[in-house]
This record gives sequence, structure tokens and C-alpha cells, in this order.
Amino acid sequence: MATAGKVIKCRAAVAWEAGKPLSIEEVEVAPPQAMEVRVKILYTALCHTDVYFWEAMGQTPVFPRILGHEAGGIVESVGEGVTELVPGDHVLPVFTGECKECAHCKSEESNLCDLLRINVDRGVMIGDGQSRFTIDGKPIFHFVGTSTFSEYTVIHVGCLAKINPEAPLDKVCVLSCGISTGLGATLNVAKPKKDSTVAIFGLGAVGLSAMEGARMAGASRIIGVDMNPAKFEQAKKFGCTDFVNPRDHTKPVQEVLVEMTNGGVDRAVECTGNVNAMISAFECVHDGWGVAVLVGVPHKEAVFKTHPMNFLNEKTLKGTFFGNYKPRTDLPEVVEMYMRKELELEKFITHSVPFSQINTAFDLMLKGEGLRCVMRMEE
Amino acid sequence: MATAGKVIKCRAAVAWEAGKPLSIEEVEVAPPQAMEVRVKILYTALCHTDVYFWEAMGQTPVFPRILGHEAGGIVESVGEGVTELVPGDHVLPVFTGECKECAHCKSEESNLCDLLRINVDRGVMIGDGQSRFTIDGKPIFHFVGTSTFSEYTVIHVGCLAKINPEAPLDKVCVLSCGISTGLGATLNVAKPKKDSTVAIFGLGAVGLSAMEGARMAGASRIIGVDMNPAKFEQAKKFGCTDFVNPRDHTKPVQEVLVEMTNGGVDRAVECTGNVNAMISAFECVHDGWGVAVLVGVPHKEAVFKTHPMNFLNEKTLKGTFFGNYKPRTDLPEVVEMYMRKELELEKFITHSVPFSQINTAFDLMLKGEGLRCVMRMEE
Ligand SMILES: NC(=O)c1ccc[n+]([C@@H]2O[C@H](COP(=O)([O-])OP(=O)(O)OC[C@H]3O[C@@H](n4cnc5c(N)ncnc54)[C@H](O)[C@@H]3O)[C@@H](O)[C@H]2O)c1
Ligand SMILES: NC(=O)c1ccc[n+]([C@@H]2O[C@H](COP(=O)([O-])OP(=O)(O)OC[C@H]3O[C@@H](n4cnc5c(N)ncnc54)[C@H](O)[C@@H]3O)[C@@H](O)[C@H]2O)c1
Ligand SMILES: [Zn+2]
Ligand SMILES: [Zn+2]
Ligand SMILES: [Zn+2]
Ligand SMILES: [Zn+2]
Repeated sequence: MATAGKVIKCRAAVAWEAGKPLSIEEVEVAPPQAMEVRVKILYTALCHTDVYFWEAMGQTPVFPRILGHEAGGIVESVGEGVTELVPGDHVLPVFTGECKECAHCKSEESNLCDLLRINVDRGVMIGDGQSRFTIDGKPIFHFVGTSTFSEYTVIHVGCLAKINPEAPLDKVCVLSCGISTGLGATLNVAKPKKDSTVAIFGLGAVGLSAMEGARMAGASRIIGVDMNPAKFEQAKKFGCTDFVNPRDHTKPVQEVLVEMTNGGVDRAVECTGNVNAMISAFECVHDGWGVAVLVGVPHKEAVFKTHPMNFLNEKTLKGTFFGNYKPRTDLPEVVEMYMRKELELEKFITHSVPFSQINTAFDLMLKGEGLRCVMRMEE
Repeated sequence: MATAGKVIKCRAAVAWEAGKPLSIEEVEVAPPQAMEVRVKILYTALCHTDVYFWEAMGQTPVFPRILGHEAGGIVESVGEGVTELVPGDHVLPVFTGECKECAHCKSEESNLCDLLRINVDRGVMIGDGQSRFTIDGKPIFHFVGTSTFSEYTVIHVGCLAKINPEAPLDKVCVLSCGISTGLGATLNVAKPKKDSTVAIFGLGAVGLSAMEGARMAGASRIIGVDMNPAKFEQAKKFGCTDFVNPRDHTKPVQEVLVEMTNGGVDRAVECTGNVNAMISAFECVHDGWGVAVLVGVPHKEAVFKTHPMNFLNEKTLKGTFFGNYKPRTDLPEVVEMYMRKELELEKFITHSVPFSQINTAFDLMLKGEGLRCVMRMEE
């Protein structure tokens, strides 16, 4: 393309300070260096993690910064050494990468790449420790290697999944983060059998995508657990058959679930980040074969406590990061699940605004309204 | 046989009181009732669990009682409804059963049979709530459905594995309990891959059989962890390549193992019953793919504690009962592993005495000498 090798000037939403509304600015985006790719973003969505690092409470602040990590785009140009992608390829950026060379990438079981594992404190490219974004020559920091709140961004090739060019980017962009996380937690880690009973703790976007996985796996009973009864109506669209609010019961919710299911659920997926919900999710699974999967990110000081006899009774406890998907290897097939109409993404996209109204998306999330707000770069 | 349907008089070792030497007595053994089998025991071994219920500390005492649960024998006669066994069949009694009809037996994943799951407090047959043993008409209690410290015993058909009649009962008798437990914990639950690194916590008979499983699976590095350095010499015969004594280090043993292995072991199997060892075994596995398996029976008040982030980093925690073997379905194949010389049982049998010297076997175990003492019923 005509822009290859040159600095591109374009619009980006810059977070200048913690908690202050983003402002749309003209930024300079440098060409991609070795193993990097410059991507034209077409759609980007907002996730809690963006809001969390924008609020930056209790964190080392990294500002000014371009946030954003759920998106879909098209390769504009590639840096030295990039052989797997060419300009025009459709890609999903992912906040965690796959170098294909480390012990984790070589293991069938792990997606925790040693080189490109998520790093929330780094605001620069891994290759040279520099930022590719500037305004009047002053660097603007990156976010989790993706910074998709910009019309163009530079991303390590290991953090880009090349997908079917026929897939609508305004829909599949939500597979960059939360939806894949919950979906994979169920399909790749909990692996419920057909006609089994699955409990989902926490009915936010991650929990509902875990629920979507349970529906796709053919679970016949799907129990949603949330402290907020307003979550139930929405959950019904995702196949939720029973709703349990722990606040409605005096006994621990795990006991309620064990009674409801005559001994425990076959699988439980925890998507709250609350350690008590993690313990309940583990203790409510059936002895002999039950599996619980933790997805929520706990507090630093949280302690998971249980009687070890629960393990001897053959309950399994696992956790997952990004639904155990290897971004480059596995995401293209998740996109295909959507193309085959097995996976329903439309249910997750409750709002859509032009990129210039990005602060509306933040407001909706802060108010807890909707699941995903997709922003389109073309107004 | 000529004895079918009749009471048999034979020798048994009776525990009259907690902690008092057993005495060899003549007992009457009633014929088997519906779904029961009378077995002529040829060899029986001593396990910690026998000693534990003989000491009966902090337990509701069940005396007089005939202990014993590791054994090999031959079917003498069968009760009504027993179709799978006939007189002359070679069998291993198992303290936990397989009814083949409950949800657990029907699940591929569980061996925790609802009907015949181990019950240490019951001293009678499950069918009619009566004992089949008497002395001068007074009942003597059973132990975990097996009571193998007797020349003849009556056992529910669901607690008997029919095995290859060519298998030497003086060797395969040890597969009734501890050896299968450790072996299965590794082979069925931890499932180490070839050339992987496995840590075994606790080098008693159970830990060494878990180690035997690691050797059979082709693990290239096998790290034994025990507080007792005397355990290392013996462990070498089971393939132990490294020995770690937590007492030799100031930092937690999980950190020592993580450093030794450049990030953690691939699999860990805990066979101590100590909750700190359970926590160490979990925390020492590699992120991304590590699996820890708990086997040791914890104290009633023990609490397993860990940071939930360990799960999010894709470490898996499981536990097992009887190595996840379904006694009737799976034990015959374990016997075949021995017949094919893949599994080495001789290493476990460190002592052998005639049945009349059963108290010698108790003394050896109380002194911590050896692994298994096999008693032969024919003097
Ligand atoms: N492991 C990963 O790779 C990964 C990736 C993305 C997000 N996450 C984590 O997943 C979690 C969920 O994300 P989300 O975007 O859906 O969040 P969300 O805030 O939209 O949803 C969480 C839900 O959990 C409910 N909840 C809170 N405490 C509860 C309790 N004790 N019992 C029952 N319900 C409870 C809340 O009412 C809410 O509906 C977060 O912790 C997030 O950090 C993990
Ligand atoms: N889950 C099951 O189905 C099942 C079946 C049989 C036995 N068990 C249990 O397995 C465990 C082991 O049985 P065994 O017969 O081999 O016992 P054992 O006493 O012979 O061996 C236990 C070993 O663990 C070591 N140990 C104790 N605390 C330790 C610690 N903190 N760190 C490292 N090593 C430690 C001891 O020194 C000893 O060598 C017991 O708890 C037993 O109850 C479980
Ligand atoms: Zn890698
Ligand atoms: Zn996200
Ligand atoms: Zn059963
Ligand atoms: Zn035993």
C-alpha cells in the first residue's frame, strides 16, 4: 500500500489521565518494525479491562495511553520477518500472544506464551522498548500490545489471529477477548457432555459466553448464579434454565445447588472474580466426576480455601486464561463456529456507536448497561 | 464344593480390642446370602488402614472385628443372584465396590459407587445387616466388606475382581489396595507423558506405587519428596532420580522444586495425608499444563489454601480414591500389567510370614520397616 514504510496520521482516542474522558486526537503511527504488523482497525469494542486500566486505581499509572483490545481490522503493512501475514489479511488483535517457539506454545496444553503473555504495565513494543504512537513527537503509550482505540495500530505478529476474510468484522471483533474467554472456559476446559447440568457463576459478558458454550455443548440444564436478579432475563436468551441468587438463601449457595441437582452439578464455571463464588463453584460440583473452572480474576490477597476431602471425592478444579485458546492457532476456528451459525455473537452486541462517541461506551459500561458496545471507525 | 451351603469352621485373626495383639481363633463362617460370595483366602497383606482401625483412636470402636483388606483368594461358593463368579474363580477383594448400576458406576469418570463405597464404620453385610462370622454363636464384626484375615470370608460380589487364574496370588494380592491406589493416581489421573518430570510427595507404599506408575509412563525425571531421608535408598529402586527433604531447605519446598525444574514439575502426586504437602504438591506444578493429584487422606479439620491465581495460571488440582480404578472393571487389567512384566510388584513385598505370625506383620508396620508383609494362610 501507498502508506507502507511511512508514518500514518490518524484519529485515536487518547486517555491522558486516569478516569478522565478520552479525547479523540490526531496521532502519528510509525511503521511496523521487525515482527510487527500495522493494522487498520475497522471495529473495536469496550471491555471491563479497558475501564479498569483507565480508572487505574491502585496501579502504577501508564499515561498518556491508547487503550482498547477487542477489535477487528485489516493488515496495512508488515515489518521485517513477518511471513504469516500480508497486507489485506483480516485479523483479530489479542492481548496475549503466541510466539509458536516457547515451551508453552509448543505444549498442546498451554496458551501462556512466555514471550507474549499479557503484560498490563508495559506501554511500549517488546522489540525495541519504544512506542509507535506519538503526538507532536511525544510518545503515547500502548496497552496490552493492542491499543485498538486508534484507526491504525502496531501489533506484534504473535498477537494477531488471521481469520476468514468473509467474517463480518463488526461481529467477530468481540472474539478478541471476553467472549472467547468464557466460551473456551466451557468448551475447552470444563467440557460438559451433552445433556449434562452446568452452573455458571456471574452473568456478565464472560459468564454469558461461558453459558453460550454450555448451550453449544448441549447441556440440558444451565443454572445461572448471580447476586443481581436483573441478570436473569438476559441470561434466558443464552439458555439459562434456572436462576439462583445467593442472597435469597440462608445456606451457602453450593448447598442449594447440590440439593437442586441431587448431588451436584456436572460442571461449574466461575466468572465473577469473587473468591467466595470460586469456592462455591468448586464445592457445588458432583463428586466422582464434577469439574469446576475458574475464570474471574481474583484480588491479590484472595485465598481459596476448601476441605481437601473434596478433591479425594474426585472433584477437579481448574482455571483458565483466555479460555485456553492459543490466539493464532485457535481463534480462526472460533470465527468459523460463528460462520456455521453454531455460535451466536449477535446476542452479545447490545450497543453500537461511532468511534467518536467512545465515551458513551464507557458510560454504558460504568452503568452496567448492556454487554458489548461495538464502535465503528468509519462514522 | 462339598462345603457349599454349610457353615465353615476355620482360622481367623480376631481383634478383640483396640490396640491389643490379634488372636488366631476358630470362627464359623456362614454361607453367602444373595449377591454374596464366600472366598477362600490364600494370601493377605497388611496395610496402614488395618492398623489405623485396629488402633481405633478417635473412632467409634467396632470390636470384636476381623480386619484385613489386601488379599487374593478363590471362590468357594456363591449366593443367590451371583452370576459373574463361580466356585474356583480367582479373585481380589476390594474395600470399595462396583455395583455396575448406580450413576457413579455408569459414569466413565467415577469409581465412587453409591451402593458399595467404602464404609469403615459398618461391621455387617449390606444385604441383611448381619455378620457372617461367629464364635460360639456370637457375632464378630466385618471390616470394609472384606475381612481377609480369615481363611474364609464372605464378600459382596461387587467387591470382588475376577482375575487371571494364572496370576500368582502371593504377588497380586497387594493390588487390592495401596499399590493400585498409587499406581492409578499416576496412570489414570496425573497421566504424565513420556520424558516428563514427576514429583512424588511421601515415599510410603502408596507414594512408591505412584512412582512405579511414573516409571511405567516413561517419566525421565522422578523427584521424591519426604521428611524422612531413610526413604531415599528404597525409592531409587522405583526410579527416583532426585530426592528432596523439605527439612533441608529454609524456603517452601514448592519453591525448591520450581527452581530445580526451571518453572515447575509436569505432574505431582501427593501421598502423605499432610495438608501442607498437598499445598506444596499443587503449587510446585508448572503453569500452563501442570497437574497435581491428591491421594493422602487428610485430617478432618485440614484446610487446603492457595491463591486462586494459581488456577488461573492453568494449574489443575485433582484427587483420587483407589486410583480411580473401578474394582471389577479395571483390576483384571492391572493384574495383566504385572503378567506382562510392565508392573513390578516384587519390589513392594519386603516381608512374608505365615498367617499365624500376623502380629509380626503389625510390628513391622508400626516400626516403619518394609513396605508390604504378605501372610500365607497355608503355613
Ligand atoms: N481468565 C481470563 O482470561 C479472563 C478474561 C477476561 C475477563 N476475566 C474476568 O472474568 C470476570 C467476569 O468478567 P465480566 O466482564 O463478565 O464481569 P461483570 O462484572 O460484567 O460480571 C460479573 C458478574 O458477577 C456477579 N457476581 C459478583 N460477585 C458474585 C458472587 N459472589 N456470586 C455470584 N455472582 C457474583 C456480578 O453481579 C456480575 O453480574 C472478571 O473477574 C474478569 O476480570 C478473566
Ligand atoms: N485416596 C486413597 O484411595 C487412599 C488409599 C490408601 C491410602 N491412602 C492414603 O495415602 C497416604 C499414604 O499412605 P502410605 O501407606 O504410603 O503411608 P506411609 O505413612 O507409609 O507414607 C507416608 C510418607 O509420607 C511422608 N510424609 C509425611 N508428611 C510429609 C510431608 N509434609 N512432606 C513430605 N513427606 C511427608 C512420611 O515420612 C512417609 O514416608 C495416607 O494418607 C493414606 O491414608 C489413600
Ligand atoms: Zn510462546
Ligand atoms: Zn477484555
Ligand atoms: Zn455402583
Ligand atoms: Zn489399604
